[in-house]
Amino acid sequence: MDQRAIGVFDSGFGGLTAVRRLRAIMPAEDIVYFGDTSRVPYGNRSRDTILRYARQDTRFLRSFDLKAIVVACGTVSSNCLDVLAAENDIPIIGVVEPAVRSAAALTRNRRVGVIATRASIGSGAYERAFRRLDEALEVTSLACPLFVPLVEEGRCRPGDIVIETVAEQYLAPMREKGVDTLVLGCTHYPLLAEVIGNVMGPEVTLVDVGAESAAALRALLQERDALAPEGTGAAEYYTSDRAADFQRLASLFLGEDVTGQVGQVDITKY
Amino acid sequence: MDQRAIGVFDSGFGGLTAVRRLRAIMPAEDIVYFGDTSRVPYGNRSRDTILRYARQDTRFLRSFDLKAIVVACGTVSSNCLDVLAAENDIPIIGVVEPAVRSAAALTRNRRVGVIATRASIGSGAYERAFRRLDEALEVTSLACPLFVPLVEEGRCRPGDIVIETVAEQYLAPMREKGVDTLVLGCTHYPLLAEVIGNVMGPEVTLVDVGAESAAALRALLQERDALAPEGTGAAEYYTSDRAADFQRLASLFLGEDVTGQVGQVDITKY
Repeated sequence: MDQRAIGVFDSGFGGLTAVRRLRAIMPAEDIVYFGDTSRVPYGNRSRDTILRYARQDTRFLRSFDLKAIVVACGTVSSNCLDVLAAENDIPIIGVVEPAVRSAAALTRNRRVGVIATRASIGSGAYERAFRRLDEALEVTSLACPLFVPLVEEGRCRPGDIVIETVAEQYLAPMREKGVDTLVLGCTHYPLLAEVIGNVMGPEVTLVDVGAESAAALRALLQERDALAPEGTGAAEYYTSDRAADFQRLASLFLGEDVTGQVGQVDITKY
Repeated sequence: MDQRAIGVFDSGFGGLTAVRRLRAIMPAEDIVYFGDTSRVPYGNRSRDTILRYARQDTRFLRSFDLKAIVVACGTVSSNCLDVLAAENDIPIIGVVEPAVRSAAALTRNRRVGVIATRASIGSGAYERAFRRLDEALEVTSLACPLFVPLVEEGRCRPGDIVIETVAEQYLAPMREKGVDTLVLGCTHYPLLAEVIGNVMGPEVTLVDVGAESAAALRALLQERDALAPEGTGAAEYYTSDRAADFQRLASLFLGEDVTGQVGQVDITKY
């Protein structure tokens, strides 16, 4: 058993969909979350900038006594997980590998797809991870840069012509490829699962990267006998911008109220 | 005459629409531009964060020998122009006052509108500036947070159902108010002038904040006999993210190629 907390970070709010899954499958664990809302979004930035921000996010989380960190940001996971893992002496779990393993196991026609931010797709990380598992898989990758701002404006529900049009246009090449399994490679995208599912059709399986990384972390902690003792874990949330603004949007992603549990951090000091 | 350069900064690319106007009306001036692309957008952030970023942007520009700075960012102009002006011994021109003066002079029915980012509208700066000029003006303000990401994805042309739907929904309350003059209070919005004009109708005058601040700066320099001597001014561009990425998008806003004129800056050191 290991009572230390699990650290989770993301560029903003999206990582809270992973926290929601973590709390659902490991309710006894303490969680410390950092959302870098003063510099969100990461998805259109260069690799150098993403790495610099990710190192600061990690250093801030390491100011707590942690047993593992979940990088609940597809952009960081795609671009520099290897560097963070090499620089830290606790497990660093990203969102790419767990989702890729799951998608490769689920596909029946061997045609899989990935949608994510421009920086995630540009990194080629998902394609490399699929190739390492199975060279015969046909992988189609697509950047969907408007999905994050549309979700953050609450335009994520079926019946909204804006998100439906954008989703249909982005996903048309994916449908033409006939993928039967689609990785939602950004932690904002679970909020679009219904819209994306309507475009792709019921025969396509959607893989939620946050859920897969939560499951991978549980398996790892179990293997190491490092799960928390039974009970109800606490959660603390930190943001690099105003705590009040964070509380307002957090409920959309987390499905619970975090008022009074949010602190503000000057991330540039880390 | 004053041969020193004019500094211009913005959170990203939008300020280049102001540079375009500056170069059109004052071709002899040297210009140093900084776009904070590693932290763009500012428009949804808190005032404290915006001020911290704006001070760094200003300190970087002051590392050049300048005669004036144009804050070509509606969000910074709305939230902390007074602080920057107090902290600097050269003129700091924002986008709020010049546009408000122009709109107040243009309106015939005394009903004016402002659209801008959430942080600009939330600051109340446009409304206060209108009140100072003329208390009898009826001012309607609206935040349009999706306009910036849509423009940056190139979705700014008539015939695109996504931008047209978003524009119609955002601007419906503005049409109901019957404004005859509308301030485009963000330097990204001139790229939407045609879409916005189609929604508002030909009887509504659109005021471009970048153009108005360029005109205000020329008037100020003329008054002080501080214009550059005749000739063709040079332009240098700096970005806080990768120079190559900047070059790609800059042409959309500036209407000219800037390859080889772009440098990268670590803005957190200022």
